[in-house]
Order: sequence, then C-alpha cells, then structure tokens
Amino acid sequence: MNCIFCDIINKKANAEILYENERVAAFLDIRPVNYGHTLIIPKAHSENFLSVSEENLLELIRITKMISGAIYKSLNPDGLNIVTNNGIAAGQSIFHFHFHIIPRYKDDAINFKPNLKSYNNGTMREFADKIRTEIFTKG
Amino acid sequence: MNCIFCDIINKKANAEILYENERVAAFLDIRPVNYGHTLIIPKAHSENFLSVSEENLLELIRITKMISGAIYKSLNPDGLNIVTNNGIAAGQSIFHFHFHIIPRYKDDAINFKPNLKSYNNGTMREFADKIRTEIFTKG
Repeated sequence: MNCIFCDIINKKANAEILYENERVAAFLDIRPVNYGHTLIIPKAHSENFLSVSEENLLELIRITKMISGAIYKSLNPDGLNIVTNNGIAAGQSIFHFHFHIIPRYKDDAINFKPNLKSYNNGTMREFADKIRTEIFTKG
Repeated sequence: MNCIFCDIINKKANAEILYENERVAAFLDIRPVNYGHTLIIPKAHSENFLSVSEENLLELIRITKMISGAIYKSLNPDGLNIVTNNGIAAGQSIFHFHFHIIPRYKDDAINFKPNLKSYNNGTMREFADKIRTEIFTKG
C-alpha cells in the first residue's frame, strides 16, 4: 500500500520533522492553513481515529499537547485548533491517522464556523437515546 | 466563577448527558453543527487543551474515541470531525476544555476548508527550527 506518511516515517519521503519517538512523529504540513501547521502521526499505520490503537492514541494526544505548547512559545499564535478528520466526508485526505495543530491569529480570516442547527422539541432526546443505546450496548 | 459546563456537571444546568464517569462527561451540544454533535469535557474545570492535566486529557481522548464509535453505529454518519478550539482566535467560546465530535455527511455542505498557504524557499525550515528549538529546550 502506498502511504506518504509511512514514506516520511521510513525516510523515503522528505519532511520537516519536528519530533519523533518510538511511537509517533510530528512534522510540518507542506500546505498549511497557517505557517507552523503541524501533523502528528502514529508510526504504525492505521487509517483513522477509530482504528488507531488506544496506546498509540494516548501517546499521540500527549505529544500533540507538548508540541502545542512549543508552538505557542515559538510562534506566539492567538489560538490553536487541534483537529482530526475521520473519513472523506469529514475532509480526511491522507488515510494514515493524524492530528492537525493549526496556529490561529486574530486577523487570519479563517472561518471554521458553519451555521448551527437547533433541535425541535423532543428530537434532542431522540438523538441522545440513539447514541446512549450504542454506548451502553455490550459487545 | 460562572461556568455553564461546571453547572452541567453539578446538575445545576440541564443537558442531554450521554455518558459520564469519575473524570469526564459527554453531552449533546445544544447548537449542533449536525445533529448528534457531542461535547466531551473533564469534570475538573480547566480552561483549555494546554491547561488540562495529562491524566484527564488521556481519559478524555479515550472516551471521545469510544463515543465516536457509538455515534457511527447509531447515526451512521459518513465521517466525523474531532476538534478542540484553544482560545478566542481559534473559535473557543466556553472556557472549560472540551472536545467536539461532529458527525458529517456527504451532502452536508459544511465547509471547514480554508485556503491553504505555501512556504517560500527556506521559510519552512525557519518555522521548523523555531518550533524544534522550543521542543528541545529544557525547562
């Protein structure tokens, strides 16, 4: 299987690697939303947030936080978005799980805000009941 | 300090709580991007991704993954965005740390995609050097 992120890990493709350890690697996105936009990935290939192992996920979020702190100190953004997109419909384009760290600035004119919906009477409970049923279903 | 999420945890404000344990709670966002949009929060108040304790962060991402699986099974979305916004400039509006799980559909016309930048010669290395310096600075 051809995977650009596996190629980066295996040094078959170039990247500005910011950090790596046994489990994870972090590098700059070559097409950033803002400069300093960073991707953090597990070294073991897994497609997305749902399929990544718990051990790798916990290490990923730990390192994502550490690097977020370093981005604050080094680039002085006004904020950060931490994002993972799961599936094409959610904007995922590389099918090797990754968190984005996106530095944000007050005047950056990036609009992540879609129109928000409202729930009609009773529908909020219906949605909650559907999800709760799955949460509390064994196996 | 007045915090709507602390009020939800303390049952002083209503919410459709999907799940809770000793450390975290998950409930439906009342103004969803799409129906089923869920927020996962630590019970201990902390402002954002940078200030949340590592123990609470690891439990939050573990439960966020579990509930993401339940949302897939119950609502059958085509994708999910998992997001945390850190700071006003990044769109944070409630200053009690939370992950969003946003169900996505092929035809939902929600556009999270900003214009992407490119790095000029040398600037990618400069940004990487700045961040790496902070990562590898002790203390």
